[in-house]
Amino acid sequence: MVIAGFAFHGCLRYRGRLGLSGGAMIDVQSSGITSRFGIESVGITGLKYPLLVRDSVSGEQQATIAHWKLGVDLPGSRRGTHMSRFITALDNIGGVPLDLDGHYQFATSIATLLDAESAQIQAEFLWFRRIAAPISGHSAQLESTVVFSAVTGPKAKKTLTVRVAAKSLCPCSKAVSDRGAHNQRSDLTLRVHLDPGQSAPAINHLLEILEGSASSPVYPVLKREDEKYVTEYAYDHPVFVEDIVRLAAEKVSVLAQSNQISGFEVEAINRESIHAHDCFAKIVFP
Amino acid sequence: MVIAGFAFHGCLRYRGRLGLSGGAMIDVQSSGITSRFGIESVGITGLKYPLLVRDSVSGEQQATIAHWKLGVDLPGSRRGTHMSRFITALDNIGGVPLDLDGHYQFATSIATLLDAESAQIQAEFLWFRRIAAPISGHSAQLESTVVFSAVTGPKAKKTLTVRVAAKSLCPCSKAVSDRGAHNQRSDLTLRVHLDPGQSAPAINHLLEILEGSASSPVYPVLKREDEKYVTEYAYDHPVFVEDIVRLAAEKVSVLAQSNQISGFEVEAINRESIHAHDCFAKIVFP
Amino acid sequence: MVIAGFAFHGCLRYRGRLGLSGGAMIDVQSSGITSRFGIESVGITGLKYPLLVRDSVSGEQQATIAHWKLGVDLPGSRRGTHMSRFITALDNIGGVPLDLDGHYQFATSIATLLDAESAQIQAEFLWFRRIAAPISGHSAQLESTVVFSAVTGPKAKKTLTVRVAAKSLCPCSKAVSDRGAHNQRSDLTLRVHLDPGQSAPAINHLLEILEGSASSPVYPVLKREDEKYVTEYAYDHPVFVEDIVRLAAEKVSVLAQSNQISGFEVEAINRESIHAHDCFAKIVFP
Amino acid sequence: MVIAGFAFHGCLRYRGRLGLSGGAMIDVQSSGITSRFGIESVGITGLKYPLLVRDSVSGEQQATIAHWKLGVDLPGSRRGTHMSRFITALDNIGGVPLDLDGHYQFATSIATLLDAESAQIQAEFLWFRRIAAPISGHSAQLESTVVFSAVTGPKAKKTLTVRVAAKSLCPCSKAVSDRGAHNQRSDLTLRVHLDPGQSAPAINHLLEILEGSASSPVYPVLKREDEKYVTEYAYDHPVFVEDIVRLAAEKVSVLAQSNQISGFEVEAINRESIHAHDCFAKIVFP
Repeated sequence: MVIAGFAFHGCLRYRGRLGLSGGAMIDVQSSGITSRFGIESVGITGLKYPLLVRDSVSGEQQATIAHWKLGVDLPGSRRGTHMSRFITALDNIGGVPLDLDGHYQFATSIATLLDAESAQIQAEFLWFRRIAAPISGHSAQLESTVVFSAVTGPKAKKTLTVRVAAKSLCPCSKAVSDRGAHNQRSDLTLRVHLDPGQSAPAINHLLEILEGSASSPVYPVLKREDEKYVTEYAYDHPVFVEDIVRLAAEKVSVLAQSNQISGFEVEAINRESIHAHDCFAKIVFP
Repeated sequence: MVIAGFAFHGCLRYRGRLGLSGGAMIDVQSSGITSRFGIESVGITGLKYPLLVRDSVSGEQQATIAHWKLGVDLPGSRRGTHMSRFITALDNIGGVPLDLDGHYQFATSIATLLDAESAQIQAEFLWFRRIAAPISGHSAQLESTVVFSAVTGPKAKKTLTVRVAAKSLCPCSKAVSDRGAHNQRSDLTLRVHLDPGQSAPAINHLLEILEGSASSPVYPVLKREDEKYVTEYAYDHPVFVEDIVRLAAEKVSVLAQSNQISGFEVEAINRESIHAHDCFAKIVFP
Repeated sequence: MVIAGFAFHGCLRYRGRLGLSGGAMIDVQSSGITSRFGIESVGITGLKYPLLVRDSVSGEQQATIAHWKLGVDLPGSRRGTHMSRFITALDNIGGVPLDLDGHYQFATSIATLLDAESAQIQAEFLWFRRIAAPISGHSAQLESTVVFSAVTGPKAKKTLTVRVAAKSLCPCSKAVSDRGAHNQRSDLTLRVHLDPGQSAPAINHLLEILEGSASSPVYPVLKREDEKYVTEYAYDHPVFVEDIVRLAAEKVSVLAQSNQISGFEVEAINRESIHAHDCFAKIVFP
Repeated sequence: MVIAGFAFHGCLRYRGRLGLSGGAMIDVQSSGITSRFGIESVGITGLKYPLLVRDSVSGEQQATIAHWKLGVDLPGSRRGTHMSRFITALDNIGGVPLDLDGHYQFATSIATLLDAESAQIQAEFLWFRRIAAPISGHSAQLESTVVFSAVTGPKAKKTLTVRVAAKSLCPCSKAVSDRGAHNQRSDLTLRVHLDPGQSAPAINHLLEILEGSASSPVYPVLKREDEKYVTEYAYDHPVFVEDIVRLAAEKVSVLAQSNQISGFEVEAINRESIHAHDCFAKIVFP
């Protein structure tokens, strides 16, 4: 039998020695080849799977559903990886709560299971906090997005990403206008990089850094007295998109100085209320 | 030969009388069946295709790329439609400019071509206007979205949908706060329904109805003096999401009263700058 | 104080009699107006909130996160609804498991809470089933999407929507080709409408109707022996996109005949593997 | 006047010396500050703007609409960039056709205009090719996506990205099954990096490399005889997702060996027809 794809493509480097299908089934993925090209990452994406997630610091657990990307490297000497093992391994986590360290260990086990030098595993999920309105005290859940990311092997690292909405009010608009100032929802993202031996900061701490760098946090429930407070507070704390990322960077850099993290990125996107387009700013450190 | 799908599914209503594949190829789609279920709409979706679009009133033309959905009804006596004919018919439009009437005629030709009682054709595309800043006069293109929709046959109608961003400033926030007021980008949609014999209003007229119902339009370019103007203008014209749709409905209803359109829907979505969620309001007339 | 938005818009129908802000805060939303236009639906959208969902028939519960749209009607005599009450009401559900009937009751309570004639509440969420591979028996979770929808008041109804991926293999391609047949992932949606007094069918039953109408279900984990089975099974059960919706309609119509549901819609979208565009078919009953 | 945002945030590094608003308007963006944090990229995103695009090699021009991201770096000594200049500069391109070199020159002019060391400009747009069916010769337009990317300054480079759908048929499924083989739509992406002095390869050449690495291209129109051809052709040319990226890498690496490009990335995502999730593979060179 000939795997025509390779002959046809004139790729003589592929030498699929596929036996006849006798008693045992052909294992095409494991067939010997010689390719110049090792594969950086191969695996599964677009997978949604339940996850019991745990914050490293507070220990708080939330039942959520993650969007997974699971990959491993593949050397030039092997034709294919074993896709089904990713799912089985993920399913085996079962109801065990996973923090970023557990996520990294999961990536390590994937590398072993798939006989790979490196695994790259990413889980993106919603994370909720109960947030009280500033005056009335009415509270409800506020959404944010968290991403656990782990790379094992020679370039090993862990990354914790948090994303949350906030309010930004334009300093220029305030300065030049006799009344009011344009403001808008902003989407803020903070990504902290950690060596395998470093412990992840608290998710909520990172979220608060972002919110504290904008003109105001957003809230799930606001009564009239709260709306007055938030409006005036934002008016008193105008920030450009550039200011937001710098203010956040100032605070996050404390973690880098104390060697709790190895680097970070912070990005802000303002959904401008005076334009149909957005403004963004990004700091990468170091 | 047996089309196993039907035997297997135990669906005795399907009686595919498929001849042997002799000289001519089997035409599976045209095979006789008897199903209780006529199909409301069958065809192609997720198709992107260039379109030279034309405004019915001004005659302005723009080269754009539309997202197409093309469907026809199918009676219970026929198993399948002929998918390739949709594409060929669309390609045959070539560089001919299409306004909503042309779009309706295209739908009519699709129904004929596919031997259908009704065709349902939809094209969604970006439409640009050159917009000048209110004080400095600096101008650039501002995006909006337009949808041409046509249904032929017993329920014949044409629909023109326009969508544009605008600025909304909250009356409650303004009323209760000592300074400032929260405002945000809003996404506004107006859908006008026409009988086949009615002529479409100008795209830009509908867009201006939406923009005039918000606290302020958005602009592609604003210098400082413009930003001052827009900020103060919006502050002076606060609207709830409910107000936006009512104000737009007031203006659009003039077209209905003068029998230029047969009905309309207007929807506003405020990307609230004090919340992570949106607020919406919708009016349907009649 | 004048709410300039209305004067400016020349909308004399709005007569905001807003007193000075003395001891009590102004309640702008409740201010008296007279508008010709009642609002079909006003409320909150784009909201993500945790939900403990329950299947009406099996009683199975899953912790998930829903995307919510919550609206009520608003008569012409009232200017605004009270947005914060939606969130507080939703939060009050707390950890109580919600099936479609519970969802309908929640909509009823929203209408009362907001003094509305009708509430329109929609929650879309992921729902998982443990699915075993057909030969090896390896199992894992398979995602699907479910939507609970409830409308109370004069047009009261409940709607249960389920969506799942499946495999479709083209009968024409199989019939005309000497070897192989093109096949692809399909996205299948079934929507069943119920009167308030009718009980919802089991979520999994509806999902199985969809999967049984395609060439094969999809699976979370497949070993080689399973892949052989699924490949051959799909090859033996070719279906056009038109066939899928008719086969599903046949099965669902049993529920309509026995008066368990009042109507349904079924839609299939094939992500064609021989095209960059998709094919779709839709049946609406009655 | 005090820009409260900074005092409040306790960020003493910001020393906004904002004069009173006398005759001239305050220029808040240009106010002197001292921040430790230079900004990697600040500017505009989510902008849609018409573009007359040109292929560097063939000279073919297409009127399209690009999604733009336009940014510049900002040193620690300046508080803000001038957002409106991006739009004005983009608008000034007017109807001038832009190839990748023109795009790079545009980025250079943006850096000058905004007094920046580096500009980062990205335009993503649809690109169409007229494709004929393999047997019948029926032709129509086939969509693909192209991204022009330019970074000027110390890390200067140009990147040309192309993305197109193709068909992949699984070698394992074919090998183990007695009839048929699962296949699906794949989304293929090729990114070639160039030094400022290197000339971009033809867009269509890169698209053909991707299509030639899959089991078959996809087509806009196929008649029955074409469908037979494509079905059998794909069956005769099975490829894993790993094979696709390696086959493409083999061909692209010729460009790297002859020093036409400085590096590349190729990624394939298979929308698996037997799963609800996708499989992916990625090669990065060097």
